Amino acid sequence: MTSPATMKALVYVGPGQKTWDAVPVPTISQPTDAIIRIVKTTICGTDLHILKGDVPAVTSGRILGHEGVGIVEETGNAVSNFKKGDRVLISCITSCGKCEYCKKQMYSHCEDGGWILGHLIDGTQAEYVRIPHADNSLYPIPAGSDEEALVMLSDILPTGFEIGVLYGAVKPGDIVAIVGAGPVGMAALLTAQFYSPAKIIMIDMDDGRLEMAKKFGATEVINSARVDAVQAVLGQTKDGVDVAIEAVGVPPTFDICQNIVRPGGHLANVGVHGTSVDLEIQKLWIQNITITTGLVNTNTTPMLLKTVASGKLQPENLITHRFGFEQFLQAYEVFGNAAKEKALKVIISSD
Amino acid sequence: MTSPATMKALVYVGPGQKTWDAVPVPTISQPTDAIIRIVKTTICGTDLHILKGDVPAVTSGRILGHEGVGIVEETGNAVSNFKKGDRVLISCITSCGKCEYCKKQMYSHCEDGGWILGHLIDGTQAEYVRIPHADNSLYPIPAGSDEEALVMLSDILPTGFEIGVLYGAVKPGDIVAIVGAGPVGMAALLTAQFYSPAKIIMIDMDDGRLEMAKKFGATEVINSARVDAVQAVLGQTKDGVDVAIEAVGVPPTFDICQNIVRPGGHLANVGVHGTSVDLEIQKLWIQNITITTGLVNTNTTPMLLKTVASGKLQPENLITHRFGFEQFLQAYEVFGNAAKEKALKVIISSD
Amino acid sequence: MTSPATMKALVYVGPGQKTWDAVPVPTISQPTDAIIRIVKTTICGTDLHILKGDVPAVTSGRILGHEGVGIVEETGNAVSNFKKGDRVLISCITSCGKCEYCKKQMYSHCEDGGWILGHLIDGTQAEYVRIPHADNSLYPIPAGSDEEALVMLSDILPTGFEIGVLYGAVKPGDIVAIVGAGPVGMAALLTAQFYSPAKIIMIDMDDGRLEMAKKFGATEVINSARVDAVQAVLGQTKDGVDVAIEAVGVPPTFDICQNIVRPGGHLANVGVHGTSVDLEIQKLWIQNITITTGLVNTNTTPMLLKTVASGKLQPENLITHRFGFEQFLQAYEVFGNAAKEKALKVIISSD
Amino acid sequence: MTSPATMKALVYVGPGQKTWDAVPVPTISQPTDAIIRIVKTTICGTDLHILKGDVPAVTSGRILGHEGVGIVEETGNAVSNFKKGDRVLISCITSCGKCEYCKKQMYSHCEDGGWILGHLIDGTQAEYVRIPHADNSLYPIPAGSDEEALVMLSDILPTGFEIGVLYGAVKPGDIVAIVGAGPVGMAALLTAQFYSPAKIIMIDMDDGRLEMAKKFGATEVINSARVDAVQAVLGQTKDGVDVAIEAVGVPPTFDICQNIVRPGGHLANVGVHGTSVDLEIQKLWIQNITITTGLVNTNTTPMLLKTVASGKLQPENLITHRFGFEQFLQAYEVFGNAAKEKALKVIISSD
Repeated sequence: MTSPATMKALVYVGPGQKTWDAVPVPTISQPTDAIIRIVKTTICGTDLHILKGDVPAVTSGRILGHEGVGIVEETGNAVSNFKKGDRVLISCITSCGKCEYCKKQMYSHCEDGGWILGHLIDGTQAEYVRIPHADNSLYPIPAGSDEEALVMLSDILPTGFEIGVLYGAVKPGDIVAIVGAGPVGMAALLTAQFYSPAKIIMIDMDDGRLEMAKKFGATEVINSARVDAVQAVLGQTKDGVDVAIEAVGVPPTFDICQNIVRPGGHLANVGVHGTSVDLEIQKLWIQNITITTGLVNTNTTPMLLKTVASGKLQPENLITHRFGFEQFLQAYEVFGNAAKEKALKVIISSD
Repeated sequence: MTSPATMKALVYVGPGQKTWDAVPVPTISQPTDAIIRIVKTTICGTDLHILKGDVPAVTSGRILGHEGVGIVEETGNAVSNFKKGDRVLISCITSCGKCEYCKKQMYSHCEDGGWILGHLIDGTQAEYVRIPHADNSLYPIPAGSDEEALVMLSDILPTGFEIGVLYGAVKPGDIVAIVGAGPVGMAALLTAQFYSPAKIIMIDMDDGRLEMAKKFGATEVINSARVDAVQAVLGQTKDGVDVAIEAVGVPPTFDICQNIVRPGGHLANVGVHGTSVDLEIQKLWIQNITITTGLVNTNTTPMLLKTVASGKLQPENLITHRFGFEQFLQAYEVFGNAAKEKALKVIISSD
Repeated sequence: MTSPATMKALVYVGPGQKTWDAVPVPTISQPTDAIIRIVKTTICGTDLHILKGDVPAVTSGRILGHEGVGIVEETGNAVSNFKKGDRVLISCITSCGKCEYCKKQMYSHCEDGGWILGHLIDGTQAEYVRIPHADNSLYPIPAGSDEEALVMLSDILPTGFEIGVLYGAVKPGDIVAIVGAGPVGMAALLTAQFYSPAKIIMIDMDDGRLEMAKKFGATEVINSARVDAVQAVLGQTKDGVDVAIEAVGVPPTFDICQNIVRPGGHLANVGVHGTSVDLEIQKLWIQNITITTGLVNTNTTPMLLKTVASGKLQPENLITHRFGFEQFLQAYEVFGNAAKEKALKVIISSD
Repeated sequence: MTSPATMKALVYVGPGQKTWDAVPVPTISQPTDAIIRIVKTTICGTDLHILKGDVPAVTSGRILGHEGVGIVEETGNAVSNFKKGDRVLISCITSCGKCEYCKKQMYSHCEDGGWILGHLIDGTQAEYVRIPHADNSLYPIPAGSDEEALVMLSDILPTGFEIGVLYGAVKPGDIVAIVGAGPVGMAALLTAQFYSPAKIIMIDMDDGRLEMAKKFGATEVINSARVDAVQAVLGQTKDGVDVAIEAVGVPPTFDICQNIVRPGGHLANVGVHGTSVDLEIQKLWIQNITITTGLVNTNTTPMLLKTVASGKLQPENLITHRFGFEQFLQAYEVFGNAAKEKALKVIISSD
């Protein structure tokens, strides 16, 4: 049986416009490529930004999406880790495995990859997708896995873990604050618990999300729409938090973080920012703090797969809504009104 | 022989005013104190700030100075590492050795110490000084040492090394840029070489200091008064520097640093800032960089003493002028006009 | 009210002999000392070794014991962290806080401390004990704590954690094997979970202890008296374990460890050994492994106190038997027959 | 111009026997392969072991050699980092770049590579060699490089650096001892200086090599044939060395190392051992030491290339003899009698 010539895909057609339309099925163009038939995918906050026209590198005609699980349909002749029929997790980051950055596990800055899916090349919100450098950009799905849960490992869980928890250096006994209870903040919340901090304080302006955060392991929650978050945090700690994770991407949330981090502490910025922030270095220069930024590398994906397999991590809890491929536009509608719909992550399935 | 009742000291008497005057000799007030007779001391840029009135915590009547070497004159009954007659290096940071921060080697944030000398208690620009928590705040001087050179280890060498080089994570093969060729920038330059970077680019606006930097090991120099430092650095690297060390403390120098650091790189802020800076996080969020700040801990002083003893580090090169105690006001005059006088560090000796 | 002149204490009087006898109450001899009234203490496997005569440094007349909680009775004039009436946890390691090793947090090798309690000076199995360098060797007990549980933090929990888990570098997703399900192996089992390994395999020859290990979080157990432990481990892993923790101290258990550690893995030796072992370096030289050894530093005690306070760690589960001070000899009887008595840790209380 | 059908090569033909003979030129067999024309190669101590018959995995007919520089002659269709005519450094370790171990930079344990050249597949002591996984196993030679010097980067410099210096965690101010002044010990000596230790003590039984070690930066030398090396080291240190590097591979040299490493120190085993050693864990368990082993990963090769380019490292100093390809058997003769010939590394050139 051969692949069809056309497929349905979610196509960006300029600011504010998208279609669910028939387009050609991708084909192998490099010996290191693989074609994947998508089984389940999702929508990221970044996709909404693209649709608004905020990411000029994305041009009209681009298929969106950088997350998903699927089945290998075809491989180039240099692909050796995968073969037709294998069930795979697609990483949001493409890694060539052989440039300076990949050799340092900084796949985010791969010289022939990085974040390109649904950005510089066609993405995963389609029936098929071409994955360059397949050996380093796909991960085998262990038999018996909950594949829906694994969609969370394409982007948000490694993002929250690597850029929030690892860069933030969360340690046993720490006090951690996470500002922003969206999907990535929740991913940081779930994975911070790998290191047994003593307290995790979740800060957001939506009571619904804060409720959810409590279920996911937050030991305290603060609604920053109602109370002064900085005072609330300082009031319950000796001199601030060991780790502040910024998971929103606007000046006021960065500002909370820089005002609650204690001497010697870490401020891990995970949020995607559109404007600069005022860094109060006249106060911070003497505080021996560390501020980190970053795009996810997904080099921790194999480890995250092990923690899912062992039951230490239950990513399925992040999924609030499910749709079929033919309901793709409706899925966008729901995810685009996350607060009203009480949506965290949505799953769109081909089957 | 007992200590005299009075001594000469450099006393701050309000913004813009200082005297070299007779004041009472300090005495033991805690069992962990020691009284040190100063043999050699120096002046720090911070002392000039205090004299301008920029550090309100310093009140009129305070003896300035937080650097020096001397001889133990008297010890409290709980001091066990030192005895009368020992020659000692005074750390600019006082460490109790028993609070939460000291136990993590963050003496800068010692709960009963930190930077207090010449700030919250009387300092080293005097014939005698009281050093609290002497066992953890003094270091024995090995026999045969060049004591003048060791004055550089009270503050600037550990500052450049810990906050610039260690926090900046300089590694063999790295490209390092240091912005600011004053004493602390030079200290970073000297100690960065402990880790064999491939290139060290020194950036300053004073050709005299840049010349000196070349002698101290800079592989390239850039006069940022004449060329666009950012373009000059980017022009000679693939995608920026591995480590950018800020050793000035004003927005334009911080700005150079944030624009030359490569993906995965470090920006180590050593400069003391009086105002906030504009952090271009809309560009940096995706760059996987690490920004650090800090006051020196001086926990590396024992290691620095070993590298001086082994000849790997020659701090005496930083000394440009020498004075006797009776010329203290003149020493301030010269150091206060460093560019004109071609001064880096001045030594003031009691003998 | 003053302290009495005599007290009851467990005194070693030569190989095989001990008494529970009246001896003089200790007094302050250095300004950094504190006298503690013991509230609860315990017996360590090391005490049994001493009683057999295996530790020649311990001389007749020595009061045994290096674990316990108590109340400060008196302090020297240089003690500032504690005052009479404070409830404190006694560390098994005495730390001066001011020698080269203490400054590196290697309190185990403190030049005026280390393991001296119940070894080179009188210990905690008594109504009162003198603690040298009290500020660095005692920890405040938070109000409302379960003090009995905290006795486990004097020695076995930091030992299992620091020398097993931290030196072994346990990471999320790892496969960990612990050889030896005695108190220290169990402490390693409990604290390894701070880092969310995927699997923890406990190996011992006592089914009772293996049952207990399952309750404490072991995901697999192997009775090495019945099956070949090496084959059993290799059979259930791809190429061995990431971390093998040796918690017994004899050649056969070390041998299991060196044969199950995978390339790049860690072998953390916690066991106290009486003879050398045959290191199969003709096989291991190519395996890129790391072997570590060590006496506990107890520098993680403040962190462990936080994890107990937050409920992440429940040390009380290790306690199987309880006695009053007057039953001290009986407590030794039970602990000395641990297998038969199904004893793990015993508590002896003064109240 | 096409490659010839046959070439000359150094072929192992069973224990004690080798020929310099005509054999077929290798061809591309995988899309990730490259064929390299060898310009310069060398002989390793391992080659001598193979010739003695000590490495049974090497079968008759195998071309030896795992070091060299050359010119790309042909590439498979999936090779993208290199093209015909590029000058390249050949790594002794083949890395697929896409297995679990390669992704952790442990190329030594690559599941489709590792040390295979001149071992499991034909090697570099020939006019041409096939390099599997060329993109990850070759390094571009910067224009203007001293290619002869770079041959030292195929194996011995990364071996001495990674397994000796990095695993041994050499730090500024350390006292380092290196046992064995052969090529790999010398490589450790050269690269230890990247980290500015205070002292490097070289121990060997050959005065000629010890003389050479002094020129390469050893601060002290000990001839262990004439004095008790352990006593000599302990006599000149407070309590032993921070880092002991074993670069021989026999029990007596391992034994020196385990008796001179101080509490908290590192013993980095670089030597290839044929028998087990007696690990004195009854003394070491309490010493908080770290013992490491390993085959080189060559993940530091890019960094080493930078340090050579910057002049921090001068590997050419290790070369004592030079031969043409037609003198290959003579080169073996000289290298096989290294002590008598005062040989360290020999270069054999095709031009």
